[in-house]
Parts: sequence; C-alpha cells; structure tokens
Amino acid sequence: MGLIVQKYGGTSVGTTERIAQVAQRVAGYQARGHQVVVVVSAMSGETNRLVAMGRELGGDRPSAREMDVLTSSGEQVTVALLSIALLELGLTAKSYLADQIRFRTDSAHGRARIEQIEVEKLRQDIDQGVIPVVAGFQGVNDQGDITTLGRGGSDTSAVALAAALSADECEICTDVEGVYTTDPRIVEGARRLSQITFEEMLELASLGSKVLHPRSVEFAGRYRVPLRVMSTFIPGPGTLITLESETMEQAEVSGIAHAVDEAKITVAGVPDVPGIASKILGPVGAKSIEVDMIVQNTGVDGMTDFTFTVKRQDYDTTLDLLKEVAADISARTVTGDNAIAKVSIVGVGMRSHAGVATKVFDRLATENINIQMISTSEIKISVVIAERYVELAVRALHDAFNLHQEPA
Amino acid sequence: MGLIVQKYGGTSVGTTERIAQVAQRVAGYQARGHQVVVVVSAMSGETNRLVAMGRELGGDRPSAREMDVLTSSGEQVTVALLSIALLELGLTAKSYLADQIRFRTDSAHGRARIEQIEVEKLRQDIDQGVIPVVAGFQGVNDQGDITTLGRGGSDTSAVALAAALSADECEICTDVEGVYTTDPRIVEGARRLSQITFEEMLELASLGSKVLHPRSVEFAGRYRVPLRVMSTFIPGPGTLITLESETMEQAEVSGIAHAVDEAKITVAGVPDVPGIASKILGPVGAKSIEVDMIVQNTGVDGMTDFTFTVKRQDYDTTLDLLKEVAADISARTVTGDNAIAKVSIVGVGMRSHAGVATKVFDRLATENINIQMISTSEIKISVVIAERYVELAVRALHDAFNLHQEPA
Repeated sequence: MGLIVQKYGGTSVGTTERIAQVAQRVAGYQARGHQVVVVVSAMSGETNRLVAMGRELGGDRPSAREMDVLTSSGEQVTVALLSIALLELGLTAKSYLADQIRFRTDSAHGRARIEQIEVEKLRQDIDQGVIPVVAGFQGVNDQGDITTLGRGGSDTSAVALAAALSADECEICTDVEGVYTTDPRIVEGARRLSQITFEEMLELASLGSKVLHPRSVEFAGRYRVPLRVMSTFIPGPGTLITLESETMEQAEVSGIAHAVDEAKITVAGVPDVPGIASKILGPVGAKSIEVDMIVQNTGVDGMTDFTFTVKRQDYDTTLDLLKEVAADISARTVTGDNAIAKVSIVGVGMRSHAGVATKVFDRLATENINIQMISTSEIKISVVIAERYVELAVRALHDAFNLHQEPA
Repeated sequence: MGLIVQKYGGTSVGTTERIAQVAQRVAGYQARGHQVVVVVSAMSGETNRLVAMGRELGGDRPSAREMDVLTSSGEQVTVALLSIALLELGLTAKSYLADQIRFRTDSAHGRARIEQIEVEKLRQDIDQGVIPVVAGFQGVNDQGDITTLGRGGSDTSAVALAAALSADECEICTDVEGVYTTDPRIVEGARRLSQITFEEMLELASLGSKVLHPRSVEFAGRYRVPLRVMSTFIPGPGTLITLESETMEQAEVSGIAHAVDEAKITVAGVPDVPGIASKILGPVGAKSIEVDMIVQNTGVDGMTDFTFTVKRQDYDTTLDLLKEVAADISARTVTGDNAIAKVSIVGVGMRSHAGVATKVFDRLATENINIQMISTSEIKISVVIAERYVELAVRALHDAFNLHQEPA
C-alpha cells in the first residue's frame, strides 16, 4: 500500500472503451489499498489533429502561445472523461488542469520547464479518498498563460507530481510491457528487464528506445522517484527504473539500442591546431543543428580528420554548410554518408566487467561488419556502422552478451 | 468608429477555412477604425461530440463538473485557432479563457449564471491595438472550477462582455442574415427586420425563433447593450435589437413565430375552488416538467376545465402523472393532444393598435382553422391550433398583417 502516481498515454485513453478500462484498472489499485493520482495524455491522434489545424492557419511557425492553448485542450478532454468514468464506478474523482494546481513553468511555450507545483489541493483530495485526475503535458506561467512541456511532456508531468507528492512510485502505463533488452521486432529473444538503473534508461531513451522520454527519466533520477514502465492492458510487473543497488542484477550489458536517423560528415585533412573543432562545429551550432557523436583522431604530420553525426534531416544543410567553410579552415575534403546506423550497448555492469568493448568489436568483426566510428561513456559503447547491417549487428550483439537469458 | 464585441457561432468557425474568413472579417473592422473584441463558440458539432463521449462513460447524468471541463475544451480550440489566424494576417491578437479574465459565475454547472467579469486585461489589450479573442460559453466559479453557461451560452458571454466593457455594439454573427418577420422556409415573402425591440426579440426567441437565446436578449436588454444579429459571410446590416424609440418603425406586428414541439393536457370537470391550479401543476413541477401556456375558464356550476401545454417530449409522462392524481382532485376526465402547434404574433405596436387580436381570430376563421387555446401578453398573442394547419396559419397571418411590406 502506498501513494502511486499513474500516467496513461494517448493509446491507453484513445477511445471511450479504453478510458472505461483504465478507470477499472485505477479502481483495482484503490481497492487494494493504494492511494492513486492519475495523469493523462490526450487521446492518441488528437494532439496531431490540433497541431495540423494550427499549422493550416498559422503556417510553419504559428504563435507558440496559441499553439499551447490549442494543444492543451486535448488533455482537458481526457481528464474530464476519465473522471466521469471513475465517478460512474462509484469512486470519487476530480479533474485538475494545470492552472488549478498551479503547475508553474517558465514561459518557453512548447518546451516549458517546470518550476513549482502546489500539491496542497491534491493532498487534501488524497486524504479524503478522492482520486485526482491531472492533465499532463500542460503548465501555466506566472502570467496565467497556458504552456506545454513538449514531446514526452505527460511523462514529465507525472514524474514531477510524484516528486512533489513524495509518491512511492510513478507508473508509466503504456502500450508496451516494459523495457526490453533490445527491440523485440528485431530480436525474437528480446527479454523484458525487471529492473534497470536511471543511468541506463537515460542512455537507452536518448539512443532511440521510444519507451520513455529522456527528460522524464532525468527528472525521476534527480528527484529519486522510483519509475515503473508497464502495460496498461496486459497484466505484469513491467520494468522498474531505480537507483543502482547492490542487489540488482548486474549483467555486463542491460540493453542494446539502435538508431537509423543519423548521418555523418567527415572533414578530412584539417590542421591539427587548437580551436579547429570549434571552427568546424561553430557554424553548425549557429544554425541550431544538433550534433551527436564527435570523433577526432590524433593528428599525424600536423593534420587531422574530424567526423561527427547529425540527424539525417539536417544532413544536406550541414554538408552544404561545411563545404562553404572548408576553405576557411584549410580542409582537404568534406564528405558525408547518410546511410549509417548507430548501435549502442548500455549497462552499468560495464564499470566492473572488463572486456565489454573487446567483445563488441570481436563479434562485429566475426559478422564482417565494419565499424566506422566509436564513442564510449562509462556505461555505454556506441558504434556507427553501415545502415544495412543494423539488424544483423543488434542480433549478433544480443547473442554475444547472452541477453535472452536472465542474469545469474 | 467604436468598440464592438463580435460573437461568432459554431457554423461560422466550423472549419479552418471559415476561421480564416472570420479573421479577414475582423481585420476589416479594425482597418475601418473599430476596436474589436471577439467571442467564439466551439466548432459546429464539437460540443455534441464531446457530450456524446461524456454520456458514453457517465450514462444519462454524467458529473456536471466534469462535463463542463469536457465541453469547455471546444471553445479553447477555437480561440487559439482564431488568434493564430489573426496573427497570420499581421494583426495582434490574444486568446483568453474564462479563468484568465476572471469570468466569474456561480457554481451551477451546465447552466451557470454570470456574476462578475474583470475586464482590465481586455481594456489594456484594446488600448494597445490587441484583439482579444475570448472563449464563449465558459466561466469559472469561486473555487477556480470551470463552469458553462448552457445552451446559447456564447451569445450570453458576448453580451456580458459588451456590457462590462460598455461596448458600442454587440454583434451576433451567425448563419442567418438577421431576424425575419417569420420563418422564410414557410413564407416566401418573409422580410428581414432592420430593427426590433428587446421585448419583441425576447418573445420571438422564447417562442421558437432560434436566432438568439432568450437569456442573451434579456441580458442585453437589462444592461442596454445594442445587439445586432447579422450573417458572418453574407454582407448586410442584419437586425438591430434595441430599446424602443419613437423613431422606430411601428407596425402593429413585427413578427410571427411558431412552435410544433408542444403538447396539451386538459383536466376537465374539476371543482372551481382556490388552490386547484397548484394541485394540478404541483406534481408536474415536482418532476421538473416545464409548463408553458396555462388556460383556465371561468367556472360554471362550481366546476371548471384546466388546460396547459408542456414540451412534447414530456407529454406521456405528464399525461400518466395527471391520470394518477385525477382522483385526488375529483377530476372528471384527463385528456391530451400532442399534435398541436403554437403560433404567436409579436409586436410592440399592439400596445397602440386596437383590433390586432380580432384580426388574428377573423383571419384564422376565414381559413377554417379552429383555435384551441389563446394566451396573450402586452405585446404578444399566442394561439394553439392543430399541427397540420401551422404553415397555413403562419402564411395567412403574415399576409393579414402585411408583413412582406416595410412599414410606412
């Protein structure tokens, strides 16, 4: 028994039938003695529908303030509908919009940052057995204007509420049964993880595993909110995302992520002098193009090669840009490749297990897959390979690290 | 030049194309030197869609508080979309929800009464050339909960804002070109009235002319807000609803309304004693059934007949109810008829023109239409006839009072 914040995503509340099922699920938790606070997203497809109407009228850059007023209406609909469904089951429930609980954010419309939440009303409700149903994704700035938190915003709303309420757990209820060792569509033996650390989840989330938005994971880690990813409609324990503990399963590797939406640019034969990196990446950053991996080799004969990756959609722009500045930086050539994939091996176990990198390189060599770039962090190894090998690489590495088996 | 509050109904903002047209119309007013405050309804069909979802989950009586949260989201969408469209035209516009301008109402969810509006923010906007776009239909109670004003609520919102801002005019922009002498679908020669008094409009609105909700007319009359009904998309002066003035056209009759959604119940042979009316209507009122016309004839031999009308949907319930209490009140018979129509002749001119009633009765007699009930007020004569004669009666009376011609 405890206080649980549950967040239901767009597909979980996508129809009135599903909303009724969610109400049943919430009722079950209360019947088992839990106190529940619910956070909901808009019905699936609704936010896109609203954004499309806004763009029809406002072009590519419609007013950010008004887009927030527009899109936040989606969550308003679902909090009301779920409250109605809970009341129909004989429970006491009450919807809350952001301004009703002073869910305060800054004024960065469309990507607002949470500043403060007044949980007094929610606490009163909880103490009286009322189930508060809170609109995710939305906030309110100090002017009383509606803001929104951006993609994955409802996850962040739920985590922030759980932190403010010192909840025992924050459950992200979604259409997958948890976090898997890798994409089950690629590897048949992909296994649901019963636990994973915040750090690992953060790496996986950033690396293209779509289960949770990195921001919500970061937030949960910072405020030490135990986070659980689980299915709304299929019973099961899901995956608990938690602080590292000695009792946790400690495999070398927890999971493998992959991303095929990147492209690489190589600036070859540039003088190996201080400041060259910023001369290359300065113009890229100035265009608000996000750079992911950066690799620079030790120079030979006072010259070096510099390679970095960007989102594939920014590839053409970046390549043109670098060709323009090539002369300024005395680069010999600027080349690129947009048919690449990034495969990343993540696990806190790497810290204590030597040889993880070697095992990765060996196995990829066995499969005849050439590694184009390597980047590592304390708990992650990412390699860039040709896109056509991505499924093969993921399957081979899943096998190499025995991820289909529960760790001993 | 002046300050104008414009209200656009659901069909006027029913698609993004129409919203763009509405923005053009508003821009035209500003270009001609007017200050404009806009009030909008939800896109047509949207409120019904939301209500249907609420009923799916909450049955016949879903939580009134949550239904208000649900339905008010419709206006949130349109204020944002219209603001985006106005900004796209290079105008400065800003959306407002009820709580942002403290559009305070009581807590009667679904039919809330307006208590107070803070117009300070709106005045600042207007002074700076900003066009405020305000969500109609919605309010906020002293708890900060969303309320709604009920059917025709957006008209009332607009009138209340116009009153609070001491606007020069409140324009109700809709899909008809104004108020007509009668239903143009029945009488080909029906004529748009250039002016009509609040009292007349109130009678016509209550009598089934769907142009304006009676509550908004009453509100406008009480606060002396000049009200104009006009088409959003067809240019024209519409109909000005105003205080009675000597310079106004003073026909005997301004318009003819009809309603076919009523039914009558006759309780015959009841003792003609004090309190008999309340004994008959008490049980009806207790069931929240609304009674419209009531007629009681002078008693003969200590007995009297009592007839009243109710909405047709309440006919069966009312008839059953009266049959139950018939014994208690020693009634001889309880009978009813649900194939009736009410035709009403309205005009402030009746006050000074004798013989209007006679002309009505004569003409109906000429057409061989039997009058079943008569009810009169200072500016109105209503008759109940068999439903099958309703078009004939309306056409005949329109002709009898020369309504196709402008008054001299």
